[in-house]
Amino acid sequence: MNDRCSFQLPEWVSPFLDDWVEPLDTARKRMELAVALSAENIRQQTGGPFAALVVDEDKKELVSVGLNLVTSAGLSIAHAEMVALSLAQVRKDDWNLANAGSMQLVSSCEPCAMCFGAVPWSGVKSVVCGAGKADAEAAGFDEGDKPNDWVRSLQRRGIVVQTAVLQQKAAQVLSDYKASGATIYNAGLAKN
Amino acid sequence: MNDRCSFQLPEWVSPFLDDWVEPLDTARKRMELAVALSAENIRQQTGGPFAALVVDEDKKELVSVGLNLVTSAGLSIAHAEMVALSLAQVRKDDWNLANAGSMQLVSSCEPCAMCFGAVPWSGVKSVVCGAGKADAEAAGFDEGDKPNDWVRSLQRRGIVVQTAVLQQKAAQVLSDYKASGATIYNAGLAKN
Repeated sequence: MNDRCSFQLPEWVSPFLDDWVEPLDTARKRMELAVALSAENIRQQTGGPFAALVVDEDKKELVSVGLNLVTSAGLSIAHAEMVALSLAQVRKDDWNLANAGSMQLVSSCEPCAMCFGAVPWSGVKSVVCGAGKADAEAAGFDEGDKPNDWVRSLQRRGIVVQTAVLQQKAAQVLSDYKASGATIYNAGLAKN
Repeated sequence: MNDRCSFQLPEWVSPFLDDWVEPLDTARKRMELAVALSAENIRQQTGGPFAALVVDEDKKELVSVGLNLVTSAGLSIAHAEMVALSLAQVRKDDWNLANAGSMQLVSSCEPCAMCFGAVPWSGVKSVVCGAGKADAEAAGFDEGDKPNDWVRSLQRRGIVVQTAVLQQKAAQVLSDYKASGATIYNAGLAKN
């Protein structure tokens, strides 16, 4: 019986972040980094075209980075948001990030049904999204079924949501991925 | 920057499973094991009152076990279903369990919003639930917002769902947990 599971960021991430000199003082600048990471994850062939960050909003400081590692880690839960939230919790040594200050999840794409559901349990205070569900679906990804009022659902739990930040640039990464002929996992799962 | 995350079942699980002699040939017998594991997870103080299994439906064989490890692993995503699905993927060396045969997720409680969203990405063919959302909420847990037609949402993706299997026994574990005065994490997050 296997009793252990782990995932890890690829080696290129650390030098990539060392080279990133732009400050992370606005949602737009944070999204620039998330989108750049999503594009690099394709180029390096380490996973799907999605990336996320957790940022300390008070200190304007990067806490963690997440990439889609589904194919490289061999785990379907290893979406960028799940990886970023988990690595932030490892760094803060607390499963509830609310205890670590005002944490923000920045994702290059609107969360899928799973990642949406993970947000309230993580303790983040706000979420910033780039591309939308329609952009991901246009590239062939099944995003699952969230409640129609998913933004309101998070707001009811005190989580501020900002959508469509740098949307066009974030969506371009998804359509470039599709155009490259790369594998779209979970394509067309849903049948009406 | 932390770049690695892992979780692991507690040591008591392996001998507990060695002692479990009942076959796993029906949904009800599988749920007996899931409920027994959820109760033992409380007794051993290794996490919340939730457990799950992945079972190979063709071979009637246990593939993996999951427990709620949120507090012990320090990860908010470490719900029983997420742990069971991930450990099954580790065992099968494939992020898509559909490639490994007819896999069933058995959970002592109806999945929360996150675990619901994780099901289609995992490749399982069916889901069996014990306690319901109302039972978990009666014990003080916030289960998040799933689409109202969450069963239909999974069915549209070809996943068979069976609810309320041994519901009373599964719900009893949750109410015993509440009665013990144990910590209910994420209690009362939602505000209307």
